[in-house]
Amino acid sequence: MGTEDIATLMAGIGARARAAAAELAIAPAEQRRTALEAAARAVRESDAAILEANARDLEQGHDKGLSGAMLDRLMLDRGRIAAIASGLEAVAAQDDPVGAVMAEWQRPSGLTIRRVRTPLGVIGVIYESRPNVTADAGALCLKSGNAVILRGGSESFQSSRAIHAALVQGLEAAGLPPEAIQLVPTRDRGAVSEMLRMVAHIDVIVPRGGKGLVGLVQAEARVPVFAHLEGICHIYLDRAADPDKARRVVLNAKTRRTGICGAAECLLIHKDLVAGLGAQVVADLIAAGVEVRAGAGLDHLPGVVRAAPEDFGREFLDMIIAAAVVEDVDGAIAHIGRFGSSHTESILTEDAATAQRFLDRVDSAIVMHNASTQFADGGEFGMGAEIGIATGKLHARGPVGAEQLTSFKYQVTGDGTVRS
Amino acid sequence: MGTEDIATLMAGIGARARAAAAELAIAPAEQRRTALEAAARAVRESDAAILEANARDLEQGHDKGLSGAMLDRLMLDRGRIAAIASGLEAVAAQDDPVGAVMAEWQRPSGLTIRRVRTPLGVIGVIYESRPNVTADAGALCLKSGNAVILRGGSESFQSSRAIHAALVQGLEAAGLPPEAIQLVPTRDRGAVSEMLRMVAHIDVIVPRGGKGLVGLVQAEARVPVFAHLEGICHIYLDRAADPDKARRVVLNAKTRRTGICGAAECLLIHKDLVAGLGAQVVADLIAAGVEVRAGAGLDHLPGVVRAAPEDFGREFLDMIIAAAVVEDVDGAIAHIGRFGSSHTESILTEDAATAQRFLDRVDSAIVMHNASTQFADGGEFGMGAEIGIATGKLHARGPVGAEQLTSFKYQVTGDGTVRS
Repeated sequence: MGTEDIATLMAGIGARARAAAAELAIAPAEQRRTALEAAARAVRESDAAILEANARDLEQGHDKGLSGAMLDRLMLDRGRIAAIASGLEAVAAQDDPVGAVMAEWQRPSGLTIRRVRTPLGVIGVIYESRPNVTADAGALCLKSGNAVILRGGSESFQSSRAIHAALVQGLEAAGLPPEAIQLVPTRDRGAVSEMLRMVAHIDVIVPRGGKGLVGLVQAEARVPVFAHLEGICHIYLDRAADPDKARRVVLNAKTRRTGICGAAECLLIHKDLVAGLGAQVVADLIAAGVEVRAGAGLDHLPGVVRAAPEDFGREFLDMIIAAAVVEDVDGAIAHIGRFGSSHTESILTEDAATAQRFLDRVDSAIVMHNASTQFADGGEFGMGAEIGIATGKLHARGPVGAEQLTSFKYQVTGDGTVRS
Repeated sequence: MGTEDIATLMAGIGARARAAAAELAIAPAEQRRTALEAAARAVRESDAAILEANARDLEQGHDKGLSGAMLDRLMLDRGRIAAIASGLEAVAAQDDPVGAVMAEWQRPSGLTIRRVRTPLGVIGVIYESRPNVTADAGALCLKSGNAVILRGGSESFQSSRAIHAALVQGLEAAGLPPEAIQLVPTRDRGAVSEMLRMVAHIDVIVPRGGKGLVGLVQAEARVPVFAHLEGICHIYLDRAADPDKARRVVLNAKTRRTGICGAAECLLIHKDLVAGLGAQVVADLIAAGVEVRAGAGLDHLPGVVRAAPEDFGREFLDMIIAAAVVEDVDGAIAHIGRFGSSHTESILTEDAATAQRFLDRVDSAIVMHNASTQFADGGEFGMGAEIGIATGKLHARGPVGAEQLTSFKYQVTGDGTVRS
């Protein structure tokens, strides 16, 4: 498609999304819930069509020489499709955020002021190969009363279309405008550039994918972005750490799943622990198959690899961890300030004051005490589902669920009240 | 100054602000309160110096041919200086937002999750001729634990410097870094352009001033902006309006002060009221000296002026109001959707369902029922003070007080808790 055609196409999608958002903003919670439940049924009933579409994507992926990991992310089977449907039902069952009274107070003037949750408007979601994001993101935006423009990866184009068709069936069954959830109908990358500039039609962009995609979106978007570029999570072994908890938590933080943004990428060890618990934790990691890239003061430990300077502040997303010695909790805080990505950090200590110092002073979206960084997840936070994790400080931070996709307004009631 | 010199100057200011912000973020509430109280004393003790600086600004203003209204905004006297000091004390006395636990909950995993308020970081404030903004904005940013870079108007350059010196005395008396409140030390407009691009050093820009300034900032800023471009406030006279309340509230909404963003700029009248209450309210406005620019269906009323199409959606900031007939509440909502600026709108009605429909469906930061739009103000909302009013939907909306200048983080506590 030509650049102008893309611009025209996207402007039309944007205008329809804006109109649908106005309808959604006043649609009752019940109607949006019905749409999500109907969409879940439609996904189940369409599983043959979804599998067929997915087979075409997979075939094309093979031909294009996608890696095994990418093909796995792309692949759907009956179990994954059932999980997509259950996910829609889980979001449907959540408390509805729209219209909730966040605060209410009275003023001496006689006014009653209520702060009430409202939808944001139109969300743009740009993602890569996982076709389930189509359903997850569509559902969270609908739950929060927002219209959404979905731009999936070209590898999962057919699968996303089939899932999107089921979502639209859900909207139609509930009497909501089908334009509430739109899928960009072209693989052309120009559509992404358009979305990033559509300030009149899109209120927030959420990129879901690797560092390449997120970095591009953050650098070029004129529309506000909820995202994290990297999850360079640190875990700090304080002098007062409990050995059993420390060994368990560090192992979990690194090895439970290495490919998620909440996986620990750097272990910080209090200087007094190097010969004792620190060495033990490093040995545990190596025994579990982790490559430990050790900085100065740790590189004599058996089995470690000497760290290069660039191993600090690096997101491995693999069975690799950097390790460094620090003076004390303030040294750990300083190291995180220098190398962290403001995502998630954890301290292991039995000293309450030290823990509080770490929780207060580390400037990350999520700070933890005696807990695995792998808990950095909207589901684990009780949000039901998340559209992503944000490391910015404005509006949304940490896991972004339905509530974080809302704004608010003030409803003020008087009785012929005038200002003196 | 050359462009490069300005860039170097501003980069230095930005880096010092960032460093000060890190200190402020961990400074106890008591210390920030002490600084504000000491600043109030310093303002009182410096009144001779502030008056002298102001006299120089006024003299220069006269020479440059500033209007009487501008000279009045610029002018300080002992009363206004005392009000600045009291304002600092009022902000000092407010509840401290930093560290407040916004929510706390437990998870089946054993984790306790707390959502805790944190400062945003560095705020940039760009304002015009009122020198008191130096103190108001500096105080609110300090209260919320943020460092601030103030860029005042060139007309009030000397006055702002004198007030700023008192704020710095307050910081120093409390042992806080003087770089927590910095005033850009040049009148060069290149400093504004720099601030709008300083994404690494400034987290939010707040423009305070006329449409020219705010429009420029909104169009060019790469840093997020909290602002409103215009306050085109509507007041709707519903068929079920109480006559006494309606007459009182409309008059107040238009005439109490015409130069503020909460002043009503357009009166919408239900079609059944044109011959009765509507005509009466129009007559009241005309009797009070207001020019009523009447649209079709109202232009036969005595004393009105015929409205031009551009009178709708216009911010008069004067003793002028546009007036239009609407079918019903939905007509009023549609008119506001087309011509409003998402700032503040009010409905006058005794019908609760109609009122709720208006409150729910009008997409403005503040929606009112039987109350004057002139209440659109942080002080009247009980926020103590405001740095401005925002009409965007992200993060801050409506009056922006100390609380809206904060972000949050999640503090998560476990007991050796791992994710399964």
